[in-house]
Amino acid sequence: MSDQDQRHMAHALALGRRGMGRCWPNPAVGCVIVKEGRVVGRGWTQDGGRPHAEPQALEMAGAQARGATVYVTLEPCSHHGQTPPCCDALIEAGVARVVAAVSDSDPRVAGQGLEKLRKHGVQVTTGVLAHEALHDHAGFFLRVEQGRPWVTLKLAMSLDGRIATATGESQWITGPAARRAVHALRACHDAVMVGAGTARADDPELTVRGMGEVPQPVRVIVSRHLDIPLLGNLARTAANVPLWMCHGPEARPELLSAWMGLGAQMVACRTSAGRIDPQSLLQALGAAGLTRVFCEGGGQLAASLLANDLVDELQVFSAGVALGAEGRPGLGVLGIERLADAPRFQLVDVAVDGVDVRHIWRRSAAS
Amino acid sequence: MSDQDQRHMAHALALGRRGMGRCWPNPAVGCVIVKEGRVVGRGWTQDGGRPHAEPQALEMAGAQARGATVYVTLEPCSHHGQTPPCCDALIEAGVARVVAAVSDSDPRVAGQGLEKLRKHGVQVTTGVLAHEALHDHAGFFLRVEQGRPWVTLKLAMSLDGRIATATGESQWITGPAARRAVHALRACHDAVMVGAGTARADDPELTVRGMGEVPQPVRVIVSRHLDIPLLGNLARTAANVPLWMCHGPEARPELLSAWMGLGAQMVACRTSAGRIDPQSLLQALGAAGLTRVFCEGGGQLAASLLANDLVDELQVFSAGVALGAEGRPGLGVLGIERLADAPRFQLVDVAVDGVDVRHIWRRSAAS
Repeated sequence: MSDQDQRHMAHALALGRRGMGRCWPNPAVGCVIVKEGRVVGRGWTQDGGRPHAEPQALEMAGAQARGATVYVTLEPCSHHGQTPPCCDALIEAGVARVVAAVSDSDPRVAGQGLEKLRKHGVQVTTGVLAHEALHDHAGFFLRVEQGRPWVTLKLAMSLDGRIATATGESQWITGPAARRAVHALRACHDAVMVGAGTARADDPELTVRGMGEVPQPVRVIVSRHLDIPLLGNLARTAANVPLWMCHGPEARPELLSAWMGLGAQMVACRTSAGRIDPQSLLQALGAAGLTRVFCEGGGQLAASLLANDLVDELQVFSAGVALGAEGRPGLGVLGIERLADAPRFQLVDVAVDGVDVRHIWRRSAAS
Repeated sequence: MSDQDQRHMAHALALGRRGMGRCWPNPAVGCVIVKEGRVVGRGWTQDGGRPHAEPQALEMAGAQARGATVYVTLEPCSHHGQTPPCCDALIEAGVARVVAAVSDSDPRVAGQGLEKLRKHGVQVTTGVLAHEALHDHAGFFLRVEQGRPWVTLKLAMSLDGRIATATGESQWITGPAARRAVHALRACHDAVMVGAGTARADDPELTVRGMGEVPQPVRVIVSRHLDIPLLGNLARTAANVPLWMCHGPEARPELLSAWMGLGAQMVACRTSAGRIDPQSLLQALGAAGLTRVFCEGGGQLAASLLANDLVDELQVFSAGVALGAEGRPGLGVLGIERLADAPRFQLVDVAVDGVDVRHIWRRSAAS
């Protein structure tokens, strides 16, 4: 793997990330076409998942694609979906070499794209910045392989792990820089998810704000009984920004009708132990196309996901304030008996966000 | 202030820190003597507080001190204590210039040292790296000005602010690197302090281990009733490593006798609201000479100190594990009604300690 290859793949990965949270259920792929050391084409998966990265880069490159090297963050597709396969377009354009960060685990592709390229005389290299690409496409892979989206859990807490005072006061524990970082995190996920308690307590909009004109992620509310105020901010905005209500079988039909009338989409989930079953919840969200979900609490939903080993990444914001044991805990009861059974995470990054510390952790076994 | 001055003062501060936790009740001062750009003398306050930094540096410099510049992290003393005043020694040695980081707030010194030097024709500069020096000497100043030591509070917790599972299992939440860091923190404080609950639950030794031959800090146990096992590790080691038992008026005389018999020192404190009053506790420790105390919990003692605005620095270790709301909280009840009343801290530093994150916070008003 040459330095050149790494440099161009890093470029392609950066382009691909522009589509994150905007192109589901498709992966956010980036593509760079290089001819004689010069970038002649660039592309990334567009909003809604089409066009793909490769045809855009090919279009920009035009005749210069002939004999060029194509850097793409995921194996090009070889199947006829809603668009013609990218492999065919690359072959037709006469590219000399394709460098793919990783091969696609989608059974419809799974190495067939690269095989087809090779058969047509295109030189193929894989594994360049594979680790980075695997992380960027992790949500796409998880959905294909396990039927569920990647889950990022946000915990914005006091130094002692509290998210509100005993009386429920929570605005603001973290500072403006951390809150801006949360909006950026919302924007790079397909959906923002909260539990019913948080929806009732905070009356949130859950939209991306202060980042210019960006597509809004889906708002996912997990509420077994659908007992969320019909006059709150979520209800008010249901017609304008996608709102999915994940409910249990016990939700009253008139509430389903009311929310549907407001423009919300209903997602039926199983319940277990008196709560919406987190496996069922994520399978339903995966079936609906989501690849990356950003969970912002509350403590019960977060604990339910953690206890079922369904959290892939933790974005923890620690504020320089202490609220004491009477404050509301950021995580509910996990039901852990022994320390060895507690969910463990590996540190990925630490940063200072204004007056707060952000630490990012991932599951050891994250794909 | 020249770059040279800053560089030499940074050297003096580094030397001074060697005495931290070993020279109480005296400040941990560092001194560097520079002649024609070359360091000809170095010194720092020795174990137990004597000799002072300046006479050691002067002795090393010998005749070269004449006409030299002396960098010292605190105004040289001018009063006759157990040693002759450092000012006189500097004047006798014929130094040309004294650069002091800060003047001494000790009323016995308070600018008189610098004044005396000036009167004898020595050029005096102050305020070089004053901010760093003020922090290094903060414990000394707090004791002189408010009668209490600097308090560093350690919180080694899970991501969600827990220090043990519901069943009390706590070994190990943080990894070996964080535990080593804790021993280094113990070593640079005059005393290590825990509450009775922690002393009973963990049966700790509270000694500095794995750092070679170092003087052991005083172990301070805060126990209203002195109900700590007489056959535990603290009792066993009481004759060898200083052990101070801070108790309330209600402690039974036979327990006082027993602990004194084991070699412990008794520190009588007032109680308020059914606990040892934290103000009274710290005043007693200050009166006994301590300038820097490292509190390692438990949750009740930590909360009691925080609620009374007696914590100067927080050393927070966050481990990549979640224990849930059933786990034991790292901080007890603070009694905070409104978020605006919660104790706030400013971020000083963030570091990665092995698998854990360490974040360091200080009171905004820290001297």
